[in-house]
Parts: sequence; C-alpha cells; structure tokens
Amino acid sequence: MANRYRRLSAAFQGELGAFSHAAAQKLLGERVPALPCPSFGEVFEALRARTASHAVIPIENTLHGSVHENYDHLLECDFAISGETSVRISHQLITMPGVRFSEVRQAFSHPVALNQCRGFFKKYSRIEPVPFYDTAGSVKMLRDGRPPAAAAIASETAAQIYGGVIRRRNIEDDPRNFTRFFLLSKQMRRNRRASGEWKTSLAFAMPNVPGALFKAMACFALRDINLTKIESRPLRGKPWEYLFYVDLLGSTDDAEVKNALSNLGELTHFLKVLGSYRPTP
Amino acid sequence: MANRYRRLSAAFQGELGAFSHAAAQKLLGERVPALPCPSFGEVFEALRARTASHAVIPIENTLHGSVHENYDHLLECDFAISGETSVRISHQLITMPGVRFSEVRQAFSHPVALNQCRGFFKKYSRIEPVPFYDTAGSVKMLRDGRPPAAAAIASETAAQIYGGVIRRRNIEDDPRNFTRFFLLSKQMRRNRRASGEWKTSLAFAMPNVPGALFKAMACFALRDINLTKIESRPLRGKPWEYLFYVDLLGSTDDAEVKNALSNLGELTHFLKVLGSYRPTP
Repeated sequence: MANRYRRLSAAFQGELGAFSHAAAQKLLGERVPALPCPSFGEVFEALRARTASHAVIPIENTLHGSVHENYDHLLECDFAISGETSVRISHQLITMPGVRFSEVRQAFSHPVALNQCRGFFKKYSRIEPVPFYDTAGSVKMLRDGRPPAAAAIASETAAQIYGGVIRRRNIEDDPRNFTRFFLLSKQMRRNRRASGEWKTSLAFAMPNVPGALFKAMACFALRDINLTKIESRPLRGKPWEYLFYVDLLGSTDDAEVKNALSNLGELTHFLKVLGSYRPTP
Repeated sequence: MANRYRRLSAAFQGELGAFSHAAAQKLLGERVPALPCPSFGEVFEALRARTASHAVIPIENTLHGSVHENYDHLLECDFAISGETSVRISHQLITMPGVRFSEVRQAFSHPVALNQCRGFFKKYSRIEPVPFYDTAGSVKMLRDGRPPAAAAIASETAAQIYGGVIRRRNIEDDPRNFTRFFLLSKQMRRNRRASGEWKTSLAFAMPNVPGALFKAMACFALRDINLTKIESRPLRGKPWEYLFYVDLLGSTDDAEVKNALSNLGELTHFLKVLGSYRPTP
C-alpha cells in the first residue's frame, strides 16, 4: 500500500480552478496533478491514504481570519507543514465564449464571493447575483449547462480550466483580500539550513493565569526570535484554558529555536511543532 | 436629526431570524425592534445615522476565526463596544406546516450552513442541499414561494418568525460552533464599577522587531491583568508592521488597567480602546 503515488500530486478542497488549486500550482508547479476534494477532512484523508503526495489548505484570510477547522486537523494529524504561500483573491466575471458582457443577466458564484463584489452589482443592476456552491464550480456549471445570459464569478484559473472568457477583471470591492495556504506532505523535508528565510509554526496550550503568555513570549524574546503571528483560541469546554498559534522566523534546526522550544515545553501543558518551511513569494 | 430613535432598536446584518438577530435578543431582550441590513457597512451606517440605537455584530467564530471586516469597521468608527455575548450556531431543519419530514427532497440554506451539516445529508441522501443567500432568508423564501417538498436549514428564531416547523433539531456536525457578538451603541455606558466581570477590548500597532510584543505583554503581566484574547494581524502594504487585538479582564475605570494602557501607549504607534463591557452569559 505504501507509496501508491509515484509522483507529485496535490489534494485540495473545492473544484478544479478553486483558489486552493491556484495555490497548489504556485507551490508545486503549474502542471501539478490535482485531486479536488469535497471537504477539508477528505483532503487530510487523501494524504493519510497516500492517494496524493501533498495537500494544500487555506489557513488564514486577511478579511475572514484563521481557518480554525484546518488548525484542528493539523493538531490531530502527523503531517508536517512543508511550504507556505499567499494568493490574492481576485474575482473575475466569466462567461462561455459567445456570450457578450452586455447580454449577461445573471452571475453565479459562492455567496461569500458575490458579497465581495457588491460594488459591481450596484453598478450593473441588470445583473442578478445567484448563489452557487462554489466559485470554480459555477464556471463548470456554465460549461455543462449553458444557461442563457449567464456569467460566473471565479478565479482566472477556473476560466482557463473550463474554457471560459473573462469579461470583467478584478471586480472585488476590496483588493486587500489574500488567503495564506500551507503545503503539507507526509515526509519531513531535510536540509533546513538552506539559505533564505525559514518559518516555523507551532501550537501550545497553557492555563490562563495572569502572566502565563508573558512567560511564553519570554522564551522567544530572550533569544531575539521574531514572531510573525500569535493568536489565542479559547478551548471550548475548558473555559480557562487557551490554545495559542505562533509563527516565528527560523527553523527547528536553528540552535536558538531549539532552545526556545525546550524552554517553552517547561511552561506549557501541550506543545506541537506543526512544521518548518520556506515561504514561496 | 439627533435622537431620531426614541427607544431601543438593533441593527444587524442578515434577515430577521439570523443568528445576529438571536444575539440581539439575548443582549437587548426578546422583543427588541430589529433593523436587518444587507451588509456590515450598512449596520455601522444605521448607527451613525441614528436609525438604530444599537448594533449587533459577529466578531469571532470558534470554527471560522475572527471577522476582520468588523474589526476594520470598529477601528474606523467612534462607537464603543457596550456588551458581548456568545450564541451557539445550531442548525434546524425547518419546513412549512403540512410538509412532513418524509416528503422533503430539497433543503435550502447558505452554503456555509449546508457544509456544516454534511453528516445529515450523508444520512438522508434523498435530500438535496440547495445553496441560498442566507440561512433565515431560506425560511422566508419557503413561506413566500412554497416550493413543494422543500425544507430550509436555519435557526430556531427563523422558524418562529416565519411560521416554520422544526422537523429535525441540531443537525450540525460539530456542536462546538459558537459565534461571539459585540453590542455597539453611540453612548458610552457609565457606572463601570458595577459588580461583576468586566472586559475591555483594544487594538494597537507596533513595529515587528524582536521583543516588541514581549514588552507590550509586560504592561499587563506587571499589573497581574489577565488577557482573554490576543491576535496579530499583518498590516497589508506594511509588511513588517502588525496590528494586535487584545481583550483583557477589567474596565478602563480600574486603576491598573488605566496604568497598563498608559504604559502601552509609550510602546505603540497606534492604540485604540474599543470599549469596556460586561459579558452577557
């Protein structure tokens, strides 16, 4: 059963052409074979069952915050984060060839995407927003169902994959909409002393007594280690206990990071290193 | 123009019966007059224009993280947080009277809600999930359109408001789905020394140099002030600067909190107290 895959492949949530697919292409190359999954749980399952060599999951969005569901999966699994990238969430108005912009009367997409294009729908009030399951899936539906006078709102990748034509570019209201993705694999990467910037992500839990977090921060500050993310998350059912997510600059092969983590281990109930990785710009 | 409202009213995003409406009822009473708004921007605008005395906004969810869009609105406006509550996001399968559960073939709801009920749709594969704009709006649509063999997935409040009948209760996969809401008003509340627990929310920005956050935490730790939330958010366009959200136990009328904030002001580029409030259980 081991090594069912012989080459690179990427599992992600959503249809072909989803923003996660675009992230997988940035991380593993344009032509990486894709394994679309209906849910995040099935993405992790694909990695576990070795039906994919890698998984690509969204972890936080500049407008919508952290994807706690994926942090939960990361805490439960044994896969290390081996890469990271950010994708700008730009929405394109896409039709099938032959449908002109002036003919469009309906635009299908996920309600979150429709809601991010409110300015566009105000400007073109003849176009009715119609909720659909998925951004990329709405382009696929145009191709298969060919409803008349219809467009979809999705990524440029989705337009390419399903043979759509972009009629209006970047119709989102807020250009500061970025999603950060993690790349996961079953194998740990070696050679962490390679040049360039490294990041390490970890999660830890400690009792919520005054000063506890201060002591945890001291483990890093005393060693001049820079943090790029810190976030607390209350543990449901344990009203006074908190889980913390921290990203720091450095790899677990660096002596200071090793010492900081050993120090942190003395203070915490629970500590898990989620992985060390080099960001892909 | 001033004081257009004579009594309590609550603006929130979504239809009547939305989870924000349930939060408004918890915070201001079951019979509080409701002002449903299509977007968060319009909720803040209603408070600004005094068409509502209060606003109720979601600020974080246990599965989906912080609602950064609402933090952005809070940073831009002058309204203080005057209350806080949490609502469990429980999904009910609702039909109009006369439609039996065994007849149901379609269930309408927001795709996020549909996705949180995957187990239910696996068990009852005869029922097709159909995406709709809004959870509560899908019950309203049942009432108005009366499509045959149809149900909606929404809150108990939505069932009550639109005359629906709950056919299956709490069909969500994960019972740990809670949303935390803030109550906003134009007036600052007085009497912050009233007995009971107080919380204060603040936002601050500082340069991301090693140890900066450690120093910020020291302002609270040195005074034995307990934090209940900390979250960093990278400032887009300012790659090395971060915004932090902090919630602490205590009110701005407490001497230690005053001193901590004055201390914090020495270290930060930007500091804004978003409000002191007593949580509603």
